[in-house]
Amino acid sequence: MRRRPFLSTSVLDTSTGSTGPSAAGRHLRDGAFGNARNLVCRECGATQELGPFYACQECFGPLEIAYDYPSITRAEIEAGPKNIWRYQALLPVPTDIASSPNMEPGFTRLLKADNLGRALGMKNLWVKDDSGNPTHSFKDRVVAVALSAARELGMTVFACPSTGNLANAVAAAGARAGMKTVVFIPADLERAKVLTSAVYTDSLVAVNGNYDDVNRLASEIAGEEEGWAFVNVNVRPYYAEGSKTLAYEVAEQLGWRLPQQVVVPVASGAQLTKIDKGFTELARLGLVEETPYKVYGAQATGCSPVSAAFKSGHDVVRPVRPDTIAKSLAIGNPADGPYVLDVTRRTGGAVEDVTDEEVRDGIQLLARTEGIFAETAGGVTIATLKKLVETGQLDPDAETVVFNTGDGLKTLDAIADRVGPAATIDPSYAAFTATGLA
Amino acid sequence: MRRRPFLSTSVLDTSTGSTGPSAAGRHLRDGAFGNARNLVCRECGATQELGPFYACQECFGPLEIAYDYPSITRAEIEAGPKNIWRYQALLPVPTDIASSPNMEPGFTRLLKADNLGRALGMKNLWVKDDSGNPTHSFKDRVVAVALSAARELGMTVFACPSTGNLANAVAAAGARAGMKTVVFIPADLERAKVLTSAVYTDSLVAVNGNYDDVNRLASEIAGEEEGWAFVNVNVRPYYAEGSKTLAYEVAEQLGWRLPQQVVVPVASGAQLTKIDKGFTELARLGLVEETPYKVYGAQATGCSPVSAAFKSGHDVVRPVRPDTIAKSLAIGNPADGPYVLDVTRRTGGAVEDVTDEEVRDGIQLLARTEGIFAETAGGVTIATLKKLVETGQLDPDAETVVFNTGDGLKTLDAIADRVGPAATIDPSYAAFTATGLA
Ligand SMILES: Cc1ncc(COP(=O)(O)O)c(C=O)c1O
Ligand SMILES: Cc1ncc(COP(=O)(O)O)c(C=O)c1O
Ligand SMILES: [Zn+2]
Ligand SMILES: [Zn+2]
Repeated sequence: MRRRPFLSTSVLDTSTGSTGPSAAGRHLRDGAFGNARNLVCRECGATQELGPFYACQECFGPLEIAYDYPSITRAEIEAGPKNIWRYQALLPVPTDIASSPNMEPGFTRLLKADNLGRALGMKNLWVKDDSGNPTHSFKDRVVAVALSAARELGMTVFACPSTGNLANAVAAAGARAGMKTVVFIPADLERAKVLTSAVYTDSLVAVNGNYDDVNRLASEIAGEEEGWAFVNVNVRPYYAEGSKTLAYEVAEQLGWRLPQQVVVPVASGAQLTKIDKGFTELARLGLVEETPYKVYGAQATGCSPVSAAFKSGHDVVRPVRPDTIAKSLAIGNPADGPYVLDVTRRTGGAVEDVTDEEVRDGIQLLARTEGIFAETAGGVTIATLKKLVETGQLDPDAETVVFNTGDGLKTLDAIADRVGPAATIDPSYAAFTATGLA
Repeated sequence: MRRRPFLSTSVLDTSTGSTGPSAAGRHLRDGAFGNARNLVCRECGATQELGPFYACQECFGPLEIAYDYPSITRAEIEAGPKNIWRYQALLPVPTDIASSPNMEPGFTRLLKADNLGRALGMKNLWVKDDSGNPTHSFKDRVVAVALSAARELGMTVFACPSTGNLANAVAAAGARAGMKTVVFIPADLERAKVLTSAVYTDSLVAVNGNYDDVNRLASEIAGEEEGWAFVNVNVRPYYAEGSKTLAYEVAEQLGWRLPQQVVVPVASGAQLTKIDKGFTELARLGLVEETPYKVYGAQATGCSPVSAAFKSGHDVVRPVRPDTIAKSLAIGNPADGPYVLDVTRRTGGAVEDVTDEEVRDGIQLLARTEGIFAETAGGVTIATLKKLVETGQLDPDAETVVFNTGDGLKTLDAIADRVGPAATIDPSYAAFTATGLA
């Protein structure tokens, strides 16, 4: 189904798909990638050996990981560590991964969200809360898998272009792994995201431009410098698999069952497509019953290229120039955009978008109903859930999981004008009773 | 051992130890407090029925929970939920606690910290990282137990005086539980801590004064208003038990074993004394071997009343006026100070204190070695660990657990002047190579 020109996505802008002069020739140790078998092109299906590759040699399409799936039981998984490595057998990582220095992300809370459900008129709602990860976003998952790949491929610099959360996760994981780490961010990022990267590394580079500019620069450096692992560029096939663990955990936490609907934020679109892949694998492996599910994507209107394509019925995602407070989702030229369209259409879901004001409402609604403080990306997702229910696109009675992928402490400005102390008083009972709060 | 006047601690400043006119007379449902048997005075040993009491009727000493300890196995605990409720049988909460709306805190990472260990010349170091909790501090643990008690006692307002983290935890848990929540903080708190409370509640009250002023006001309100559960004042005996779960988790995560040394930050001192209680219980119940351990307390020099008492050999903790960037530890008149002295002296540990500059160094050291971004309280603890090793008070070869109880995102100013982007560049390869980072 080559119905769209893959080269329009950003991943190949400046590179030929290998990571530089020599890394490709390296000897891999046995089992370096666990049960992963090879790389396969998502466009033409051509296969390629496991290595530092991310684009098809035949058609330049993006590569993903294929597996010799093991037979594995629920009990075996449940006996594993309480982090993403319990799913080691389904990831491109070695069997001894849990004992190498890493951030040990994952196994975050899945909270029944009855209050939020009531507020939205929904019967059976859950929040998967990834703000509990080590650097407080789902990016710790993908980075942990990318770190393993970078190590196994003998790469020496751990790097990324980032909208913020990825920078935090890469800088932290790199510090703990003792790797040289270089992180690229748009210069206008939120203060909290800048400092939460800089605390871990002296090699944080601010770039005058938006994320798409930063991403292009990263691709260029990946093509020029030897041994640089840009987690979401030239190690992307490995990296992206980390998001499958969100699907695995949700299914396990529901008691080995698939939800009927999921709502997922979309920037590059990698996470959404991998959650779908994760559910599919679990059913295929017999770990859950194969029940239908619908996947919904959430974007901010100020950066909604995938939502726009979905609504207009197009296969091609037209790049946009982002303008939204949801900076972590501000990717105007999303590498996995077309696959998000595939997944949402195939499963009967949708992609929707919400205004910045709705994003702020979404943050506050989630905080006040469930005690979860989300960053703007989470606000996008909650607000989109609300809109999907209100417009009849999502079934309010079906079991639904909404993903909070980030943390409100990183985007305080989004709510700073809206909330604050009810009163400032002197320390006396009389002053307190005068507030009317007694 | 009544060798110090209990009334010098702040908990009783303005109240008589019951929670108001009528709450005491309420009927409790069966099993409301699990295996808890009664309240017992920490000073004179007098017992009292379970209820909304926090001070001894005989001597005004502080009350704590006593249990009819069940016989319980490791396997039973391991089969429980992946949060603090797996230890339900050892907490004053009902058996159905896991299914009531709560934040589901706990079971945070215990990370082997070989890099930090190397930097400090230590052989066997772990970090218990409580920044992964729902509101990113250990306070979610104590608040969850206090919420259960408030509910079972029929109290209607969920409240606290707080140095910041407790406010966040109470506001979030109260929102999720659908309880009226009123939270009191010193007016000069960090912006992040103010907003992370205000996002959950319209009833945040800023008080002109330091924490000790706020605490006095809370005691006064608790004495006047009916049905107000101030988690760390009139529900304190229940609340404090939540910190035992830190000890339980550490022991379980080590493979059911006690560490030889622990380093714990001290504000009121409740957490430190309850970690000791948790270890003792595990040994008594046969869940771990009874091996010796030393408990060390960490304070900021700008608020180090307990450290000062320890060093001078006194039993009485003399109140101070706090002046430190470690605002979450800024309690000048610590309720559990004398018990911290008891525990550290009995186990052969110590209490030490470090300057604000050492606190900043501690934050950065932990971030750069292990990828963990701690708040100022964590900086205090890491810096104290370093000082204890350097001064020969702590054995660098013995297995040691250091507690990171909070999150760096809440105290960004502590490192804002020290870290930042290495360069700001235009998005070109040439501009990048000019930085010297290639
Ligand atoms: C908090 C958060 N949620 C969601 C996303 C979207 O991820 P993806 O690029 O995989 O679509 C991002 C991307 O940076 C993010 O930071
Ligand atoms: C992050 C953090 N660590 C430690 C403490 C100390 O707790 P305690 O009052 O039990 O000594 C506090 C208290 O507020 C805190 O916020
Ligand atoms: Zn191809
Ligand atoms: Zn007494």
